[in-house]
Amino acid sequence: MSAIRWDRLFTHATLATFDGDTPFGLIEDGALACADGRIAWVGAMRELPDGATATHTEDLGGALLTPGLVDCHTHLVFGGNRANEFDMRLNGASYEEIARAGGGIVSSVRASRAADEDTLFAQSLPRARALLADGVTTLEIKSGYGLELDAERRMLRVARRIGAELGITVRTSFLGLHALPPEYKERRDDYVALVCDTMLPALAGEGLVDAVDAFCERIAFTSAETRRLFERATQLGLPVKLHAEQLSDQGGAALVAGFHGLSADHLEHLGNAGIASMAEAGTVAVLLPGAFYALRETHLPPVAALREHGVPIAIATDCNPGTSPLLSLRLAANMACTLFRLPPEEALRGITVNAARALGLIDRGTLAVGQRADLVAWHARQPAELCYWIGGPLVRQVWIEGAPM
Amino acid sequence: MSAIRWDRLFTHATLATFDGDTPFGLIEDGALACADGRIAWVGAMRELPDGATATHTEDLGGALLTPGLVDCHTHLVFGGNRANEFDMRLNGASYEEIARAGGGIVSSVRASRAADEDTLFAQSLPRARALLADGVTTLEIKSGYGLELDAERRMLRVARRIGAELGITVRTSFLGLHALPPEYKERRDDYVALVCDTMLPALAGEGLVDAVDAFCERIAFTSAETRRLFERATQLGLPVKLHAEQLSDQGGAALVAGFHGLSADHLEHLGNAGIASMAEAGTVAVLLPGAFYALRETHLPPVAALREHGVPIAIATDCNPGTSPLLSLRLAANMACTLFRLPPEEALRGITVNAARALGLIDRGTLAVGQRADLVAWHARQPAELCYWIGGPLVRQVWIEGAPM
Ligand SMILES: [Zn+2]
Ligand SMILES: [Zn+2]
Repeated sequence: MSAIRWDRLFTHATLATFDGDTPFGLIEDGALACADGRIAWVGAMRELPDGATATHTEDLGGALLTPGLVDCHTHLVFGGNRANEFDMRLNGASYEEIARAGGGIVSSVRASRAADEDTLFAQSLPRARALLADGVTTLEIKSGYGLELDAERRMLRVARRIGAELGITVRTSFLGLHALPPEYKERRDDYVALVCDTMLPALAGEGLVDAVDAFCERIAFTSAETRRLFERATQLGLPVKLHAEQLSDQGGAALVAGFHGLSADHLEHLGNAGIASMAEAGTVAVLLPGAFYALRETHLPPVAALREHGVPIAIATDCNPGTSPLLSLRLAANMACTLFRLPPEEALRGITVNAARALGLIDRGTLAVGQRADLVAWHARQPAELCYWIGGPLVRQVWIEGAPM
Repeated sequence: MSAIRWDRLFTHATLATFDGDTPFGLIEDGALACADGRIAWVGAMRELPDGATATHTEDLGGALLTPGLVDCHTHLVFGGNRANEFDMRLNGASYEEIARAGGGIVSSVRASRAADEDTLFAQSLPRARALLADGVTTLEIKSGYGLELDAERRMLRVARRIGAELGITVRTSFLGLHALPPEYKERRDDYVALVCDTMLPALAGEGLVDAVDAFCERIAFTSAETRRLFERATQLGLPVKLHAEQLSDQGGAALVAGFHGLSADHLEHLGNAGIASMAEAGTVAVLLPGAFYALRETHLPPVAALREHGVPIAIATDCNPGTSPLLSLRLAANMACTLFRLPPEEALRGITVNAARALGLIDRGTLAVGQRADLVAWHARQPAELCYWIGGPLVRQVWIEGAPM
């Protein structure tokens, strides 16, 4: 019998595995071993194989160990910020006055177009660092403030650079159909054609696009325009996802489910037909309580119906300069509990296993043998504490593929 | 003419001085000098005296510099936490079921009484560290989970130790009238007498009490009981403050104002009579949006009326295990903007100059000559950003009395 020797062994950990159906997949007084960047063993201390050793062994003394968190919906690459607009609004300025002062999404488009790649990288990196400091090891980043080929390319390249710089996984989504750029105000068909027929194929060809996203809403793009984009994405072999039913029910959830989409996101105004389609397609419901909070929305997403239909629920920051300047995924989970009444168990699956699923990733989000050893040890002993504390630095240590950050 | 030589000089800073009535007391491209732990000079770069030098000079390159933040209402010394109760409630448990399971404030009293001083210190210190990491250099901490002499003393001693350990200013408030301890359920007069006639004089005599607080509410103590406490505090020469009108209008604000109280706190149900009394007495209105958020309250405090009457408004975390496990004062300011519609200028005065005033401190909270050199440099360039970003580590560096932390 050959002796087991792992790279790394954690002992006396409280493990929230999210593997199986027990609450949090909890293993009290557990152990977890890594080898070659993967989880090699996980279980109760008392079941640890005799004679197993590791190059590095760490006694966690009861501290909570979870999978690295997954933020599956962000727009964190952008130029400038909109603090000024936030200030104006709270001083009583109307949306029209803000627009006249150059505010709104157009201001982020202007600032993002004006920034060269290094500037955009320098401005965006601290936001990714903030998420990592909060336990995020896998991050989705969308384009959508460029709205022209070069600027969209720059955003996606910066997203890739952030992943390389921090050693975290970054999944990119092309969001050319985020807003109609001002110069296409009278030519929306031309813009949709540009996105579908020029921008998407070019950027996909450069390997910059992991998924294709759109904003389907009265103030953005119609479901017909979205469909055209999704057909092109499908031809290119790219998965789709959608900003759907945030402000009204446009049938976006059913549309994206019809394309076997990864996720439908926001969903405050999702109806039963959309839920049924999502359940059938296995499309994840991504809830974004940061935007709900910041916009002071009152129409809650249909959490109970999603649950009943077995639609997986994920939670994300929606980190963006206009409607959710949120730099903590754990805070998004707290908001999901507080505002949407998700139990901590559901909120935490929403920022781990279900968020990974929303990105099409099945190699992470749980503590199970064979999964990537992306791990977080916390200054906490119970999983619910991650949702309970509001703010505060709770991360004790992060490991990516078994290596400490 | 003798040459000026300061201990420390910051150049090219964006200064939010909160001195005077201009928005944020803003000085763009400003400079600030410290000597002997105090601010020795503040103004625009172009007005910096010729030949002035400093032992340490730091070019802030446009970064925002503010006074150290002041959290004027916390209960951050406590044993255990209530994540379990948070979890139960979100899984549908009623308040009665939670109480039967040993939850509610009684559970914090039990855990705080059971903890010895070192344990209580070890459990509470990380919460103070979290606030400091977020820019807080002056902190109020209340007793009120002991509800018996020894345990209240332990809480106040731990509060003092936290101040000494971190080098921050801690102001203590004795909150014996926080809740009726279970053993006095049938003898509330005896408990009030114990607090007023035994506990307060003893703890004040030991130098552990900077101010006296109470919770005046239907579910806590009456205004007559509060008055009795305040009379005793006044005899002892101690300032008073009050948890007032959180859930109903009990006339607490007028009561505390009648004693020239430092502050009335919460105030969601404050009426016009209370506002007029506070304005006359100069009592600060301390708003606690963290508790409003966590309890999903809908009844807003009368911000416009407070403003009209010239009542100074402060914002605090209310950091406590039951209704506001909030570990970021900057997030409290964001909530004040988002939920209470305070402009950033007002929210930021609420966590600096007005919060200092709520603690009776006039030597801090602004950047002005002679003030303590408690300073924070931020990863931000505009004051409004401190309220705009939700979460995230924004502090670049903290100085206390001119010394880097
Ligand atoms: Zn979004
Ligand atoms: Zn309180």
